[in-house]
Amino acid sequence: MSQQRNGQAAGVSDGGVFPDLPEATVARLPEYLRALHHLAETGFETVSSEGLAAAAGVNSAKLRKDLSHLGSYGTRGVGYDVALLIAQIEHVLGLTQRRAVALVGVGNLGHALAGYGGFSTRGFRIAALFDADPDRIGERINGLVVKDIARLPEVVAAEAISIALIATPAHAAQLVADQLVAAGVTSILNFAPCVLSVPDGVDVRKVDLAIELQILSFHEHRKSALTTLPAPAGNGRMKIRPTLNGEALAT
Amino acid sequence: MSQQRNGQAAGVSDGGVFPDLPEATVARLPEYLRALHHLAETGFETVSSEGLAAAAGVNSAKLRKDLSHLGSYGTRGVGYDVALLIAQIEHVLGLTQRRAVALVGVGNLGHALAGYGGFSTRGFRIAALFDADPDRIGERINGLVVKDIARLPEVVAAEAISIALIATPAHAAQLVADQLVAAGVTSILNFAPCVLSVPDGVDVRKVDLAIELQILSFHEHRKSALTTLPAPAGNGRMKIRPTLNGEALAT
Repeated sequence: MSQQRNGQAAGVSDGGVFPDLPEATVARLPEYLRALHHLAETGFETVSSEGLAAAAGVNSAKLRKDLSHLGSYGTRGVGYDVALLIAQIEHVLGLTQRRAVALVGVGNLGHALAGYGGFSTRGFRIAALFDADPDRIGERINGLVVKDIARLPEVVAAEAISIALIATPAHAAQLVADQLVAAGVTSILNFAPCVLSVPDGVDVRKVDLAIELQILSFHEHRKSALTTLPAPAGNGRMKIRPTLNGEALAT
Repeated sequence: MSQQRNGQAAGVSDGGVFPDLPEATVARLPEYLRALHHLAETGFETVSSEGLAAAAGVNSAKLRKDLSHLGSYGTRGVGYDVALLIAQIEHVLGLTQRRAVALVGVGNLGHALAGYGGFSTRGFRIAALFDADPDRIGERINGLVVKDIARLPEVVAAEAISIALIATPAHAAQLVADQLVAAGVTSILNFAPCVLSVPDGVDVRKVDLAIELQILSFHEHRKSALTTLPAPAGNGRMKIRPTLNGEALAT
């Protein structure tokens, strides 16, 4: 997954009204939050940085650094107060209010997203579904009726929606993004496999499932190269010299 | 999204049989590849680093650095040969063979993944579907019959599957991961919202849709703080002091 940011970097505190947070820290805060909720549910009142780091799948030095950006340092010999840290992270992430989200495109993936239980328990409510296909408009999914994309401005305003998911085919995604921005949406999670162009002040994150698989493919390829290829003579590096027919030669 | 790596780092060339590539470069190669395929389809034979960088949504200095890791520097005044660069990236990512992938868990999300057109055009073939629910076993989705998870070892061997997608509920994901690893799968793309524990040599990437939304929520929260809060006096920073009831106070 990659991320596009437009306008201000997360780490810039323009006017000083929001804490300075590196983008990578922002990306890890939800992981800490999930681990903390799990700890709270299982009865933990405090947790060491090592324990929380293990639960979130990061190293503890990175965790301590991330939390120090929030002004949270824990107590020596005790660790972090679980409830306090949950409150702190939820505040920074803006999760103290439940955010209304619009979903555009109700094909297979859109159906899955509309029915995804993970959103409602984590601070989000899918408030509206849209499609441009007359055959889909009017369909009821999880209690919501799919609306005509033409009604976007009216519904976005009525439901105070600032975040939208795009689950359309790639060729339709830019037009949908333009419509969303025109309607006042300022954050987009894009599932269509394409790069979106948006004005400053609009944030886009991209989820591309095939790209995730291609990254794993690299690791598979590397692992099989390590186990099946003999180590070459010389400097111990394989030079890859690709040819136009797609075959690569190790020289 | 976050990533767990076990065993060797991607940048380490153990025995020298595979090119040294930083993990972040590996993550961007699929983006370049997609942009290059689009350029090739629209008739481009060469592309400048600026043009390719814009199409992939990264800055051109980063792109040139990434491609230099592959030994690809382009030609001054001409740019990169599109077909050559496609061949080179596909080789490094191990995409010259079409990889068989197993999918475990055919709920809403599993259905969407099983029907996701983006995999087949990008080097992957969903070769087998599994579930543990007797009501789902035997169901036909996109031409494949959902199999009992108990048949995992046999099918993984028969289809030479090394990559699997987990689309089960969180509570079942670790057990499924253990079964996949025992059956010989060495790369897992995890859609369940939990951290998986796997042995060295197994790669896990995690896709958590709620986490992506929470990151966008941060940006929404930051933007609204910038537009609605008055700049405080003093050092220009807002201190966030959370309290146990989830309210945070700006002091």
